[in-house]
Amino acid sequence: MTLAEAARLVGGSLSDACVAEQRIVGINTLTEAGPHEASFLANAKYRSRLEQSNAAVILVAEHERVPETLPVMRTRDPYLGFAVLQRAFHPQPTASGRRHKSAAIDASAVIADDVDISAQAVIGAGVRIGRGTIIGAGCVIGDNVTIGEECLLHPHAFVAEGCMLGDRVTLQAGAVIGSDGFGYAWSGKVHLKIPQTGRVILADDVEIGAQTCIDRGALGDTVIEQGVKLDNLIQVGHNVHIGAHSIMASQTGISGSTTIGAGCQIGGQVGFAGHIEIAPGCKIAAQSGVMNNLETGVYGGSPAMPHRAWMRMLAIMQKLPDLVKKLQK
Amino acid sequence: MTLAEAARLVGGSLSDACVAEQRIVGINTLTEAGPHEASFLANAKYRSRLEQSNAAVILVAEHERVPETLPVMRTRDPYLGFAVLQRAFHPQPTASGRRHKSAAIDASAVIADDVDISAQAVIGAGVRIGRGTIIGAGCVIGDNVTIGEECLLHPHAFVAEGCMLGDRVTLQAGAVIGSDGFGYAWSGKVHLKIPQTGRVILADDVEIGAQTCIDRGALGDTVIEQGVKLDNLIQVGHNVHIGAHSIMASQTGISGSTTIGAGCQIGGQVGFAGHIEIAPGCKIAAQSGVMNNLETGVYGGSPAMPHRAWMRMLAIMQKLPDLVKKLQK
Amino acid sequence: MTLAEAARLVGGSLSDACVAEQRIVGINTLTEAGPHEASFLANAKYRSRLEQSNAAVILVAEHERVPETLPVMRTRDPYLGFAVLQRAFHPQPTASGRRHKSAAIDASAVIADDVDISAQAVIGAGVRIGRGTIIGAGCVIGDNVTIGEECLLHPHAFVAEGCMLGDRVTLQAGAVIGSDGFGYAWSGKVHLKIPQTGRVILADDVEIGAQTCIDRGALGDTVIEQGVKLDNLIQVGHNVHIGAHSIMASQTGISGSTTIGAGCQIGGQVGFAGHIEIAPGCKIAAQSGVMNNLETGVYGGSPAMPHRAWMRMLAIMQKLPDLVKKLQK
Repeated sequence: MTLAEAARLVGGSLSDACVAEQRIVGINTLTEAGPHEASFLANAKYRSRLEQSNAAVILVAEHERVPETLPVMRTRDPYLGFAVLQRAFHPQPTASGRRHKSAAIDASAVIADDVDISAQAVIGAGVRIGRGTIIGAGCVIGDNVTIGEECLLHPHAFVAEGCMLGDRVTLQAGAVIGSDGFGYAWSGKVHLKIPQTGRVILADDVEIGAQTCIDRGALGDTVIEQGVKLDNLIQVGHNVHIGAHSIMASQTGISGSTTIGAGCQIGGQVGFAGHIEIAPGCKIAAQSGVMNNLETGVYGGSPAMPHRAWMRMLAIMQKLPDLVKKLQK
Repeated sequence: MTLAEAARLVGGSLSDACVAEQRIVGINTLTEAGPHEASFLANAKYRSRLEQSNAAVILVAEHERVPETLPVMRTRDPYLGFAVLQRAFHPQPTASGRRHKSAAIDASAVIADDVDISAQAVIGAGVRIGRGTIIGAGCVIGDNVTIGEECLLHPHAFVAEGCMLGDRVTLQAGAVIGSDGFGYAWSGKVHLKIPQTGRVILADDVEIGAQTCIDRGALGDTVIEQGVKLDNLIQVGHNVHIGAHSIMASQTGISGSTTIGAGCQIGGQVGFAGHIEIAPGCKIAAQSGVMNNLETGVYGGSPAMPHRAWMRMLAIMQKLPDLVKKLQK
Repeated sequence: MTLAEAARLVGGSLSDACVAEQRIVGINTLTEAGPHEASFLANAKYRSRLEQSNAAVILVAEHERVPETLPVMRTRDPYLGFAVLQRAFHPQPTASGRRHKSAAIDASAVIADDVDISAQAVIGAGVRIGRGTIIGAGCVIGDNVTIGEECLLHPHAFVAEGCMLGDRVTLQAGAVIGSDGFGYAWSGKVHLKIPQTGRVILADDVEIGAQTCIDRGALGDTVIEQGVKLDNLIQVGHNVHIGAHSIMASQTGISGSTTIGAGCQIGGQVGFAGHIEIAPGCKIAAQSGVMNNLETGVYGGSPAMPHRAWMRMLAIMQKLPDLVKKLQK
């Protein structure tokens, strides 16, 4: 790919120090990039590494100040530009109809011709898998599961009976889709298990992280809308609903029947109580504890409060010991 | 099942608006239930949905006020009633002696005739499995493990060498029973691993959530008593002891050698220090951090304190910025 | 092993109450040890159990006060002594070249003769495995992975394409090495996935806990240095670097591009923001939230602060309700 082609792909403009016909073979960090690689500046922390970089071109924001001799590509969002180039250099693996002889595939499964089924995978009865999907090694697909087109299931992913995946869904290694929800009723003597009869439905373009668990609905379904991205080791309780394009960092947990609106950004290790509603577009800081409904806004703390109130409270708390000393005087 | 039969099963009484001989085919939420389904009101939040429900009958608490025209079944605990009906409509799967040809079963294993061994499962040497148990796809049962009767192991569950499961134990997908405890001694140069030679013992009717890890004892055993229910992604350290019928929500972690008494209710994302004792019947709020022994009571916060003290502290903390402003004046 | 041999191994000295030629067959807790077992006192909490113990010998610290009639072995670090003895009694399992017929081994893999490959394991193309390594049941080793000598991979561990393990690396059950990092760029409409093209490199003597996830680098590698020990259910983001001999308890999470120095001790359920640097030798209390660079020191709280400041703040906070009452008077 030439720099000119890269600029077209990204929608960026090359500085005079660039050689438009120069070829690049990949993209790398500012410190690691060689003379045949592109690089990018997306985090101001790494600004000082700009001038030492050997990259053929560096993607920078439109108004970034750089020396005239530096070969840069100006673009609205250098991180997005990086993503676009990286995707061009590293397209997703494509399926080609390989069926490993060690896979256990039920005769009643309806699987498109070009689907890959890797070693030791298990495909249950009545399963349907759309074209272009790759089922990784050791995956288990329960009975009557439906999986769309061009999905990528990494090794050891598990999709339980009756659950549904849309198109282009990615499951990282060990993801569990459709474990039983945590539902018991106390009989006076024992916790009586309530059969969990709902499903999990993952819409198109959803990605689920490694070891993340999504419980099936108790009644009705647990639903993850289009384009949602969940990181590793997340817990999603039964009958949770997550709106389109919400994104959630590692080790967060959502209790049963809670609704997360579309376009939310949620940090790591956050906890959500059950049966609450989070409005679309909320941003919630890592380690927050959300116990009540939230309107659209930015939140932090446990219990979660508006981010500014939280920052003010933290500031006061850190001064508290000195303050109390003064008062005692 | 007729409404009359349902009422007998639940121990409830039908209101005059009910047709005792009407048949129901299942149970559903207030909004989703059709005219041939039952429903229930167990959370006051959903009270407003009562009158719009099309359910054939709605389980309500004995003193719930409802319009006379609404077909209700009065019962002491509608949620328990729901559980009882749901269990009648959806009995657990039963084993029938299927052994998938792809399973790797050691010749020395002693397995009851009707046990199901699913595809790609591994059964080690000297394993014993009681009648009616179902071993899911891709499960690994280590050497010399003992599993009781009517257990249900979901796919990818792992039981390590020598561990013991009682009767009617359920392991959700990916549960790890008997990983090595986190035990090292600092030699001055390296962390020297201490061989973990104890077992994990799960008593009857225990259920372990997806991806939950229970470490084997360092010496002696890690013991989970009868009827304990652990949610997903929980960490149980070596030599922990959890008393009967305790229940614990997702992502909680218990450090080594800690004892949790019987009948405790523990929220999600709680952390317990090691070598402490939690008295029976404790209730501990989500995200608490328990650093010391606790007497029977209700607790919250990190570090955990009595729930009332915690609530008072939270209230004060939220007023703090204003309070300090006033003081400074 | 005689007491005299044990003392030599540990570098301890036997009290007069010991019979040097007495044989011991193992080591056990103070309460459980029988007359042919050793025991140890490493936690002052269990001091009262000393005199009731039936152990043949009890490892104690050099200046521990004990009755003269108690058979003790004095040593600088009784816990280390315990480790040394336990390792002598329970050596690691050794490989012997078993290849289970159900394993799926790519013909292009280069595997030392004595390596064990257990049932249902998957070994990808171009994999290299050094002598003495044991691959557990159901493990999946991706294409072009390199694994060193005398490694021990417990069941269901997964090592993704191109990752590298040094010698004597242990992976507990279900560990995920090389899942995709959580990298997306917002296109204005969707979260565009950034292909994660780096690797995970685990140096010699690293141990990774059950269900712990280590993401591959986005660009460049995620690196875990020699002797690092990670507990269960930990999240390590892309391009994280953990220095030699650091140790981290369960359910901690490290966001992308963060560096943890050598010799750190990190409690459970800690969260680290991304792109920060933790100096070598830091000790960080459980449930801390680390949002900034830390110099060498002891820390706690969320946001994390020096441990003494945190203790002082907690003390004040607990007095706060009373303090405010007084003020209002």
